[in-house]
Amino acid sequence: MEWIAKALERVRKRKPLVQNITNFVVMNTTANALLALGASPVMAHARDELEDMLRIADSLVVNIGTLDEHWIPSMEKAVKIASELKKPTVLDPVGAGATKLRTETALRLLEIGDITILRGNFGEIAALLGEHGRTRGVDSATYEEDKAKELALTAAREFNTVVAVTGPVDYVSDGKGVYAVYNGNEMLGRVTGTGCMVTAITGAFAAVEEPLKAAVSALAIFGIAAEKACEEAKYPGSFHVKLYDWLYRIDEELIIERAKVRKVEP
Amino acid sequence: MEWIAKALERVRKRKPLVQNITNFVVMNTTANALLALGASPVMAHARDELEDMLRIADSLVVNIGTLDEHWIPSMEKAVKIASELKKPTVLDPVGAGATKLRTETALRLLEIGDITILRGNFGEIAALLGEHGRTRGVDSATYEEDKAKELALTAAREFNTVVAVTGPVDYVSDGKGVYAVYNGNEMLGRVTGTGCMVTAITGAFAAVEEPLKAAVSALAIFGIAAEKACEEAKYPGSFHVKLYDWLYRIDEELIIERAKVRKVEP
Amino acid sequence: MEWIAKALERVRKRKPLVQNITNFVVMNTTANALLALGASPVMAHARDELEDMLRIADSLVVNIGTLDEHWIPSMEKAVKIASELKKPTVLDPVGAGATKLRTETALRLLEIGDITILRGNFGEIAALLGEHGRTRGVDSATYEEDKAKELALTAAREFNTVVAVTGPVDYVSDGKGVYAVYNGNEMLGRVTGTGCMVTAITGAFAAVEEPLKAAVSALAIFGIAAEKACEEAKYPGSFHVKLYDWLYRIDEELIIERAKVRKVEP
Repeated sequence: MEWIAKALERVRKRKPLVQNITNFVVMNTTANALLALGASPVMAHARDELEDMLRIADSLVVNIGTLDEHWIPSMEKAVKIASELKKPTVLDPVGAGATKLRTETALRLLEIGDITILRGNFGEIAALLGEHGRTRGVDSATYEEDKAKELALTAAREFNTVVAVTGPVDYVSDGKGVYAVYNGNEMLGRVTGTGCMVTAITGAFAAVEEPLKAAVSALAIFGIAAEKACEEAKYPGSFHVKLYDWLYRIDEELIIERAKVRKVEP
Repeated sequence: MEWIAKALERVRKRKPLVQNITNFVVMNTTANALLALGASPVMAHARDELEDMLRIADSLVVNIGTLDEHWIPSMEKAVKIASELKKPTVLDPVGAGATKLRTETALRLLEIGDITILRGNFGEIAALLGEHGRTRGVDSATYEEDKAKELALTAAREFNTVVAVTGPVDYVSDGKGVYAVYNGNEMLGRVTGTGCMVTAITGAFAAVEEPLKAAVSALAIFGIAAEKACEEAKYPGSFHVKLYDWLYRIDEELIIERAKVRKVEP
Repeated sequence: MEWIAKALERVRKRKPLVQNITNFVVMNTTANALLALGASPVMAHARDELEDMLRIADSLVVNIGTLDEHWIPSMEKAVKIASELKKPTVLDPVGAGATKLRTETALRLLEIGDITILRGNFGEIAALLGEHGRTRGVDSATYEEDKAKELALTAAREFNTVVAVTGPVDYVSDGKGVYAVYNGNEMLGRVTGTGCMVTAITGAFAAVEEPLKAAVSALAIFGIAAEKACEEAKYPGSFHVKLYDWLYRIDEELIIERAKVRKVEP
């Protein structure tokens, strides 16, 4: 697990500037997650400034959680520019499967540019694959562990990108290998936007590490931070606060001790 | 007060999906209040996805706190669809009385669809009734206890809905009976969006209980959580954190012990 | 430093209503900072209600952190109306220098109305002065202490307003005198929107004190609150919570004991 610690070290050293087009619910919390970890967030969505901002950014995160007709063109433009500039791009298809607009928007973003990493829950990724995934709101999905691994692998091949399917166990695949990440805990489901926070910090790792390892590193580190936070605080308000504390405190020693990451057979 | 505990039990068992069109200031905090309590929040406002989202939602919450010309049509469309689909709908007329735009928008939403519960402070509800209520910003109002009960009753009859007028004592009426809720404390006025949080969780209760009792349950439970939070934390930052903790921790025993709810003469 | 304590006393007594047009990332946190301090926040941006809202407001804060083509006209209209109504106006040119859109928007706002106080970091204010300031995202800048004082003074003369250049040491000038504020600490850089919070509470002070002293008071008080918060909590999540606690708790005694404010030679 040393490579995960090394990835974190690089984030803290280089402080990548992560440009986010994300949803209104989590703008504050994802910025704080990035800052606590040691990266540098910026939030900009005006079409007239996207190119300027992406030129100085190290990566792009697009999250469709509160999309609308004004924001979708910004997302599309940002993904195109980032592709041209070869900036790593992470997509969070929040609520895909819940509404057609979300499913179609996410699919279009996958088509028009180079998405480096796609992170969603089981229902969202399944919906994108045209399966019968039914997203219940945006915070859960019918997770089936035996199918999650397969889903990550299939989606990675289909969309030609790294895919992270998150749930009780997270599966990450680049279409060839598959990693399973066992870190995290259930309290994450009691705080809004924790999935979006993982996506945001995935953007930081994508700026300093190759995509497959970047996604795994983000998930393991976020999961460990959540475990430590829950040891200190058993209720959601306090847990949420401690989560930032541990994104700041997590270090090589803790990663080596706690990371539960395994390469599994595809 | 057993029925309040039963209502909470139903929220936790059924985990109603509450669709919110709310203001930018409180999107994160109202989602967290719903999650802490045990409900499931979703925030969507794009007109093209409202019908899809409302079909899977159990109730709708509309809060006009940062309304504008792009969001008002979404609010209107959502209220109409929810009415057609017979989904309980809660309206928070934030800042009615402070500007004409807010007063008129709230009144239009009351006209075009079936609002199940209207929750506002004294000044907001008074403004909607055409009285001389002058809302000072959005966080207070000239509360007059002897008039608050009457206001709830009159507004409920006028708008043919359940009305909750919140303040030091909350009054809730369906136009026939009136309940007074004495829970809560002053620290709630030092954290932004606590009124919006009550409105949001009212949406959760409206999905599992009849309107009058739903509104009373939400107010009593939120008030008790605030009292417990304040016993643990006397300053606003820490109090805010503990508020989520207690929305999660509150249980039947605490409700029976603490709820101060009385049916009063109309 | 007694005048700083007096300014805070006036904020708490008069509870100025501060109208904010700010960015999505910090709407919640700036409202909470104002409430914790004892002021009264309101957030409204619809062009159709700006005049109504500004008539009852005591000051205006404009922050361009997530500007776009829909919000810029609101910012412009608000600044114009506030000027006509002679309401003190504080401008935070978030990210000026990072993109042309931000630099140009901030400059236009400075032209079309009376900005009472301009608060930004070194890179932002330098960019507005047409220097080679390069803003890295929105949370930092190439701060050079020996130049910061001069920058505040020059910008104050150029824009004919009070300018606060914040950094490890903050410099505030009205074009004649210069104050240096040494309060604050590095943990502020690990929580998003702390600069925006200072701007917001500057709006509260601007409603009750003349501009130069208002800006200095806000910076000193916020800095002291941050110092106290950091004594109680060494990590960013917990620190953030305690920051609100100390904005609420700070009093005359603490200000007298801790304020490090000096009038320096221009």
